[in-house]
Amino acid sequence: MSITLQPARPSVAARLAIRRGDHPGPTAGLAAGYVQANLAILPASHADDFLKFCVRNPQSCPVLAVSEPGDTALPALGQDIDIRSDVPGYRVFRDGELIAEPDNLDEVWRDDLVTFVIGCSFSFEEALLANGVPVRHIEQGCNVPMYRTSIPTQPAGPFHGPLVVSMRPMLPAQAIRAIQVTSRFPAVHGAPVHLGDPALIGIADLARPDYGDAVAIRDHEIPVFWACGVTPQSVIAATKPPFCITHAPGKMLITDLLNAHLAAL
Amino acid sequence: MSITLQPARPSVAARLAIRRGDHPGPTAGLAAGYVQANLAILPASHADDFLKFCVRNPQSCPVLAVSEPGDTALPALGQDIDIRSDVPGYRVFRDGELIAEPDNLDEVWRDDLVTFVIGCSFSFEEALLANGVPVRHIEQGCNVPMYRTSIPTQPAGPFHGPLVVSMRPMLPAQAIRAIQVTSRFPAVHGAPVHLGDPALIGIADLARPDYGDAVAIRDHEIPVFWACGVTPQSVIAATKPPFCITHAPGKMLITDLLNAHLAAL
Repeated sequence: MSITLQPARPSVAARLAIRRGDHPGPTAGLAAGYVQANLAILPASHADDFLKFCVRNPQSCPVLAVSEPGDTALPALGQDIDIRSDVPGYRVFRDGELIAEPDNLDEVWRDDLVTFVIGCSFSFEEALLANGVPVRHIEQGCNVPMYRTSIPTQPAGPFHGPLVVSMRPMLPAQAIRAIQVTSRFPAVHGAPVHLGDPALIGIADLARPDYGDAVAIRDHEIPVFWACGVTPQSVIAATKPPFCITHAPGKMLITDLLNAHLAAL
Repeated sequence: MSITLQPARPSVAARLAIRRGDHPGPTAGLAAGYVQANLAILPASHADDFLKFCVRNPQSCPVLAVSEPGDTALPALGQDIDIRSDVPGYRVFRDGELIAEPDNLDEVWRDDLVTFVIGCSFSFEEALLANGVPVRHIEQGCNVPMYRTSIPTQPAGPFHGPLVVSMRPMLPAQAIRAIQVTSRFPAVHGAPVHLGDPALIGIADLARPDYGDAVAIRDHEIPVFWACGVTPQSVIAATKPPFCITHAPGKMLITDLLNAHLAAL
């Protein structure tokens, strides 16, 4: 593979380092200010239904880009992106079973694969911090806690399942500010879907998240819940498509879009 | 007094009816879509400090207009407004004591009086209803419950005292929508200041409001609290200025501004 990128932008430099294998770890903290995104790659046979699923569930599955079958570029998201190499780690599934965790897709790529790039809460967390709203899992240096809820998604073809939410605890006045701030970012989950009593959305115990890590909830704080990009991954896993690729947890696609440019206003 | 208004607008027609004495009651429901506002009239000796107080506490005291001393018109708010006659009822205070409740100010008007017109939550309640967010006290046909809090205002001169909030109970998802909707209206109290546990802002019992009426809080609902235009009235009352006039409760000044035009976006 020839390397033609000029690392003028931090996002391009980061992708170049990832492509070279110089950054095999999680992407948090890389190319600050640039949109990082979730990845789901499906065969064309399942892509139309999955796109419908995303369109019907925009808060959990905000599509930033979708490729033509077999196309490895994503020109809307960055110059010279090659989806086979520009993420530090991938997960490959056959019939719902994890069969490989490669650091590139050279050996598994197929001409019928369609790439979906889905917005991620990293973008709005940057805005929360810039507004003085604390983000507990960042403070604690762990993953955000995520929970399956009793809220159904709108199904499409074989894709169906519960909404997965991420949770950030904060004081009430911070929650009000967080709602204002994240409402500006509909392309990356937007406003919360719930706050307060977790039982109302089918969460039995905040200390036992279904994904990620539990975080401390301090005196007077309330849990605030956002639709989460793990929803499409969870739905795909439950659907057990014949073939599927996702990014490895925390190893996101770094795009040339600025988080600030995702703000609706 | 000569009547020169042409009742082309509903707001002008309503003021004309009030001026004639044809509408002595509360103004709720009159001239739908038009901004109704709180009134505070103070001698020039106190007006500069009170204006500073309002500027320092914009969430509770959003100033829509302030007059020159002795001026009875408010051209920014409506053609031909005469503040002495265009509100259905007034309260006149001397040294903090209620001395009269006239239906016009002809006998008490003075050349040193400065009129403050302060935004009112009527404007954002219209927007809440239009967004499908229920407003309990409107459903119940009573006044909104209001509470003195432990949150201090920023003082100015003799004016100081606690923030007064109004409370509307709603489901969490409705509260999230209500925060979005009311954030568009900074000129009429804007976003809530608190939600959830009332004790955190010094409210002991939601069933015993300091002003207005208690309302039902249903299963799974949370109380949502907005800064309230009763704050300046409460602060003025505590300050006991030598002379002061307010509107009588529920008998607001109807302006020619549209509620929709107060939306910041």
